[in-house]
Amino acid sequence: MPLLRRKRKPEPVVEEPEAPKLPDPPEPGAGGLRAMADHRAYLLSCIEPLPPFGQQILDSVGLSLCEDVVAGVSMPRFDNSAMDGYAVRAADVQNATEQTPVSLPVVGEVQAGSPAPHTLSPGTAMKIMTGAALPEGADAIVPYEATDRGAEDVRINEPSINGQHVRRVGEDVNEGDTVLRAGDRLTSRSIGLLAAIGVDQVMVRPRPRVVVVSTGSELVEPGLALQNDQQIYDSNSYMLAAAAKAAGAQVFRVGRVPDDPAQLKQVISDQLVRADLILTTGGVSQGDYDIVKQVLPELGPCDFSGVAMQPGKPQGFGLIGEDQTPIIMMPGNPVSAFVSFEAFVRPVLRKLAGVEPFVRPTVRLTAARAITSVPGKLQFARGVVRTDDQGHRTVDLAGGHGSHLLGGLSLSDALLLIDEETDFVAAGDEIDCWLLGEDN
Amino acid sequence: MPLLRRKRKPEPVVEEPEAPKLPDPPEPGAGGLRAMADHRAYLLSCIEPLPPFGQQILDSVGLSLCEDVVAGVSMPRFDNSAMDGYAVRAADVQNATEQTPVSLPVVGEVQAGSPAPHTLSPGTAMKIMTGAALPEGADAIVPYEATDRGAEDVRINEPSINGQHVRRVGEDVNEGDTVLRAGDRLTSRSIGLLAAIGVDQVMVRPRPRVVVVSTGSELVEPGLALQNDQQIYDSNSYMLAAAAKAAGAQVFRVGRVPDDPAQLKQVISDQLVRADLILTTGGVSQGDYDIVKQVLPELGPCDFSGVAMQPGKPQGFGLIGEDQTPIIMMPGNPVSAFVSFEAFVRPVLRKLAGVEPFVRPTVRLTAARAITSVPGKLQFARGVVRTDDQGHRTVDLAGGHGSHLLGGLSLSDALLLIDEETDFVAAGDEIDCWLLGEDN
Repeated sequence: MPLLRRKRKPEPVVEEPEAPKLPDPPEPGAGGLRAMADHRAYLLSCIEPLPPFGQQILDSVGLSLCEDVVAGVSMPRFDNSAMDGYAVRAADVQNATEQTPVSLPVVGEVQAGSPAPHTLSPGTAMKIMTGAALPEGADAIVPYEATDRGAEDVRINEPSINGQHVRRVGEDVNEGDTVLRAGDRLTSRSIGLLAAIGVDQVMVRPRPRVVVVSTGSELVEPGLALQNDQQIYDSNSYMLAAAAKAAGAQVFRVGRVPDDPAQLKQVISDQLVRADLILTTGGVSQGDYDIVKQVLPELGPCDFSGVAMQPGKPQGFGLIGEDQTPIIMMPGNPVSAFVSFEAFVRPVLRKLAGVEPFVRPTVRLTAARAITSVPGKLQFARGVVRTDDQGHRTVDLAGGHGSHLLGGLSLSDALLLIDEETDFVAAGDEIDCWLLGEDN
Repeated sequence: MPLLRRKRKPEPVVEEPEAPKLPDPPEPGAGGLRAMADHRAYLLSCIEPLPPFGQQILDSVGLSLCEDVVAGVSMPRFDNSAMDGYAVRAADVQNATEQTPVSLPVVGEVQAGSPAPHTLSPGTAMKIMTGAALPEGADAIVPYEATDRGAEDVRINEPSINGQHVRRVGEDVNEGDTVLRAGDRLTSRSIGLLAAIGVDQVMVRPRPRVVVVSTGSELVEPGLALQNDQQIYDSNSYMLAAAAKAAGAQVFRVGRVPDDPAQLKQVISDQLVRADLILTTGGVSQGDYDIVKQVLPELGPCDFSGVAMQPGKPQGFGLIGEDQTPIIMMPGNPVSAFVSFEAFVRPVLRKLAGVEPFVRPTVRLTAARAITSVPGKLQFARGVVRTDDQGHRTVDLAGGHGSHLLGGLSLSDALLLIDEETDFVAAGDEIDCWLLGEDN
């Protein structure tokens, strides 16, 4: 075919890559503010659990299992003794009493880890240790306490019945049973169970890697001296790093970045490589120097909104960088930041880690004293829970309502949720609480 | 003085070092068994909290503070704005409304981290950002929302009063206030408070270093193949290591040691150098191969006793080696070992770490169904807690009573304590529980 007749290939059409977008945010309610639960559901809808990986069981406590685990062995694996004593045939000792003891020759012994030396003949006994395999021919265990602990012959002072103090094969778990399921969170007890059936590695979701950045030119690192009257110490990055760690994350605390757009953009871009989630505080309000709000949309689609809650009204969320890494941008007041963490970050962390329930369960506790509230927004008050001698719990306010009151926050072990229609909770009334748990 | 007249010094008396002893154990009750609470109190009386050391605040979450912390700065450090808006004299805008707005010239602005450029003159306004210092002469903040956000002049549509949206110096914490006390357990919130007052290091008690050893020639490492019918997998060392980790310890899992006295003695002796507490399972019962009971007294004074609880009756405790390191020797059945951990090890770990309360608080929950119990000993049953829509909690049995039933244990999130006089708990009755917490 002559060259001239060759058809020219059509020019490849260079398609403009579609700019990533966030899903449509929920409609705001009255007053133009978004409901807290709607905002939380929106964030959760924008992220997916992290991909699973194989992990040693000892490093998996608190992580979420990503596979069903089927027992490859039965537990017990064999009929065995629940006591130290003598293996017998129950029929031989069914009438034994203190007054009419039965004496049997001791024809051997079985210890845990070794097989019985031989079958038990009628009219004999075999010494046996807890956990040791029941010898063939035996059907009951007489514990030491019911004998004279004889070595050549043993005197048995109590009757027995078939199966007494015998643990039957499969009584706990049968080979083929599904003992744990995808989605289960591994506790020390389930790790014991995994080990017991011989499993040393499981597929779990990893601990989310969280980068914590605080913004504000006024921030100074704790331990350093304040240089002028306007400076304050950076508390948010420490508090949120500790809270994320307590919630099971692997945390990189970057700390404070001044109110400089180029610097903020650089820091956040640099951190993307090691982040499953980025947290920032400050710079999301209506102020003219709210640079987070200004800069972050350059890195990916962002949603800044007012949420009908107090504290914690201004909230930002985005999916930034090449991997569309989620970023949650919280207000800079420490109490607002903590409440935002509990309301939004913790559920997101749990979804990333695949740990249900994502949202902390609400518990209703009795108010120890009357509480007044500002209607119109969901109020988060800081509470202290007390348990009386009877085990009943009441909750009281810790410190005041101000979003800057860290003193009260540090004393609290619960958040009280007072809905937007309530302006007064009487002493003795029940109130919705999030219990913060003793370790975070 | 002539040499001959010098008095000879008396020969130094070489005193035989007194062999260390344990304090007298508590008297057993009826049946020759020790009450659980008595045994626990005995162990706690034999150990002391670990000595404190200086730690970075971010690594201190969950640890116990060993000093009172006094605030070196007030919070807020200066009167500042709680809102983005305009600093004004309240008197100038006290009659402003939507219908009768007040217009003021904007004479400058204050951002967080910088001082106000000058004193505010009557009849003027100054733009101000959240957290920025209140200019001298101003006594109230008008938020953006109540203005037209003017740059040269601002129209103010709402009245204000003295102090509105102003955070006063020391409103949260005053310089000189004791904000945290020795014995407080540090949460993310108290770490935020420490950072906020500029503290970067605190004296805390360290995480106890715990060595976990399981004994038994029948034990095989999970992941390996079982070689004969009598072998079982080592689950205790994994379960206890995970539980100790979840309780805040630094854990060294040594794993299984066969029933060989010389080898056990060697392993335990070798581990003493890195242990604040040693845990063993197995070998403390009445069996003839119970080598823990046989070997450990060679390393230091030990107490082996029967405790009036089920499971978990045979218990050992000792103070071994040169440093009198505490060792808790638990029975080998996995459920017995877990119950022993909760009853004795966790309180000891918390005392070592200085974290109160040492003993897990007992909570009374409603039994979802009737529960039968064996009277005569304190029964620990495994429970599952359910919270209804109203936030009320009920507890049900998880799995059976057998001390070998790991399947049931792995499902449980509570231990039910049924006292020695009770043989029946009706559905709807209240029952004492230890809530295991979601992370362990």
